[in-house]
Amino acid sequence: MTSFDSAVEPRSATIATIAQEVGVSVATVSKVLNGRTDVAPDTRARVEASLDRHHYRRRTRRQPVATNKIHLVFHEFDYAWAMEIIQGVESAVSAYGAELVLAQLGGRHRPSDSWLDTLLGRQPMGVLFVACGLTPPQQARLRRQRVPFVAVDTDSAPPESVPTVGSNNWNGGLIAARHLLELGHTRIAVISGPEELLCSRARVAGFRSAHDEAGLTVDPDLVRYGTFYLDAGYEHGMDLLRRPNRPTAIFAGSDTQAMGVLRAARRLGLHLPGDLSVVGYDNLPVAAWMEPALTTVNQPLQDMASTAARMLLDLASGIDLTSNRIDLGTELVVRESTAPPAPGL
Amino acid sequence: MTSFDSAVEPRSATIATIAQEVGVSVATVSKVLNGRTDVAPDTRARVEASLDRHHYRRRTRRQPVATNKIHLVFHEFDYAWAMEIIQGVESAVSAYGAELVLAQLGGRHRPSDSWLDTLLGRQPMGVLFVACGLTPPQQARLRRQRVPFVAVDTDSAPPESVPTVGSNNWNGGLIAARHLLELGHTRIAVISGPEELLCSRARVAGFRSAHDEAGLTVDPDLVRYGTFYLDAGYEHGMDLLRRPNRPTAIFAGSDTQAMGVLRAARRLGLHLPGDLSVVGYDNLPVAAWMEPALTTVNQPLQDMASTAARMLLDLASGIDLTSNRIDLGTELVVRESTAPPAPGL
Repeated sequence: MTSFDSAVEPRSATIATIAQEVGVSVATVSKVLNGRTDVAPDTRARVEASLDRHHYRRRTRRQPVATNKIHLVFHEFDYAWAMEIIQGVESAVSAYGAELVLAQLGGRHRPSDSWLDTLLGRQPMGVLFVACGLTPPQQARLRRQRVPFVAVDTDSAPPESVPTVGSNNWNGGLIAARHLLELGHTRIAVISGPEELLCSRARVAGFRSAHDEAGLTVDPDLVRYGTFYLDAGYEHGMDLLRRPNRPTAIFAGSDTQAMGVLRAARRLGLHLPGDLSVVGYDNLPVAAWMEPALTTVNQPLQDMASTAARMLLDLASGIDLTSNRIDLGTELVVRESTAPPAPGL
Repeated sequence: MTSFDSAVEPRSATIATIAQEVGVSVATVSKVLNGRTDVAPDTRARVEASLDRHHYRRRTRRQPVATNKIHLVFHEFDYAWAMEIIQGVESAVSAYGAELVLAQLGGRHRPSDSWLDTLLGRQPMGVLFVACGLTPPQQARLRRQRVPFVAVDTDSAPPESVPTVGSNNWNGGLIAARHLLELGHTRIAVISGPEELLCSRARVAGFRSAHDEAGLTVDPDLVRYGTFYLDAGYEHGMDLLRRPNRPTAIFAGSDTQAMGVLRAARRLGLHLPGDLSVVGYDNLPVAAWMEPALTTVNQPLQDMASTAARMLLDLASGIDLTSNRIDLGTELVVRESTAPPAPGL
């Protein structure tokens, strides 16, 4: 460390400070900063820790990157809506003239550090995470290398420091329940997503608010949480529809889950929408193809994805974001699976 | 052109020959060969034509490419099965440690030359085309730059010079019809894909062969062609099922088309499988979720895609392919949408 450095930027460490503190060469610190993979993991961890302690930020202007790649990283591909996200991102990325690189974490919600090493070695222009994210130290690594990142997250939980695009889940629950209440239903069940996700709880809160508006209380036995998949819809559907005082309408957590409710109804000899009304969530293409065509809450996945991609491209171009958190609106799409309850039900 | 060059390789032109013939510098020919975009389109066209006339092939060994990218190019994304292809390719590409770049041609079956310029400028390690391809001059350009390419094509039409992975469509038609005939159906309709696609005709040929085996002739009025989408299934389904002597079973060209047939049946008050049996094609995840769960022909899209990706990675590594054309087998998956015809039908 030279006194010149310390005089110019008295409150911030230099590469030399870090090197001295950790007991490595300046070149090694530089390699860590540049995401090079030829540094022993243990050494890198110590350098990273020192960089974190000193809140080290590079002072030089970002070097122009050689590549033109946006990496789109999924928690996993088998969400029914991954194709919607891909289409939205691809439209924004190709309009910009960049390349779209696709990856998935095989079901993990946080990548391993070695996965992140490989990613950074590939020099992305920016990274877009879908239903997954980074630990705070991992976020710090991307920031140090000036690789911007944005999240598409239907859960409303990511920290404010991560630019995120989501949708208004509370409103989704509200408009679904309002529609069913306006049709005359009074015993309405909700099967939401996993209870640990904020989005699931936000939808149930919206569902409750609509009941409050109507002067009705929600029967706690009619509030369920499960996965977003078909099995959860089938199992909760069977259980709800076999009750002596069964609900006349069910609001499901996804279109896929709604398919499970339809299967349960069919097994029990109930016809839609005469015997039972069902509202889905997402508005995937398949919702319009089901028999009966599904009334559902439109979550604008393509728009969310293209909005997030444009935010990322702005960040990569050095443009500041006007807002770090954007929730797009949800809307009800009425099709054939909802009707007034049959007289006597 | 030096006599040395001509002595060593007497039957092949050199870059100098090409340059002289076209009337440009050696540097310009070299730029065209290297896929550089800073050559006037007209000049490049003349250089390309001369290279083609001389069947020019580079003599130097391929330079190691700086990138590690496999480009996956779709005709368009909105095929219901694009996600199946992506999953198959991603598993092979990530196992190899390469990057997967995604692109689509917005519905075109052949890219424009300027699109190809951009692609080559991005230095792919290899290119995988899905339901799209290249003109012969475009193929020649990729070969000159030693960029290998492979096609995933359910149509059986690509030229033998392009390594291709498909599936056995004739067998798919055969096993679907055999299943229905074995259940006792004798008036079976087929709605295939577009008639101009060889895969559509191959399936109908297999369907006919099963009838031949059973000593039955196919009623020409019961053989239809349409798109692979829901509307075609609905429209042909309505037409077929309103006939006085309606078919008791329908073999559809895709699971999506089968959804259209189910819609038509429901509109006409027919129940599956008692009043009508339906067999789909593809075995997308949604086939298992439909009500009733769809009997369908499994087209192993993920396996086709991963096989094609591995062929491409072999070619990129300099390994020769044992076969240029691979068709994976098709199998019947029996679920709930097929049963013997009701007595009296």
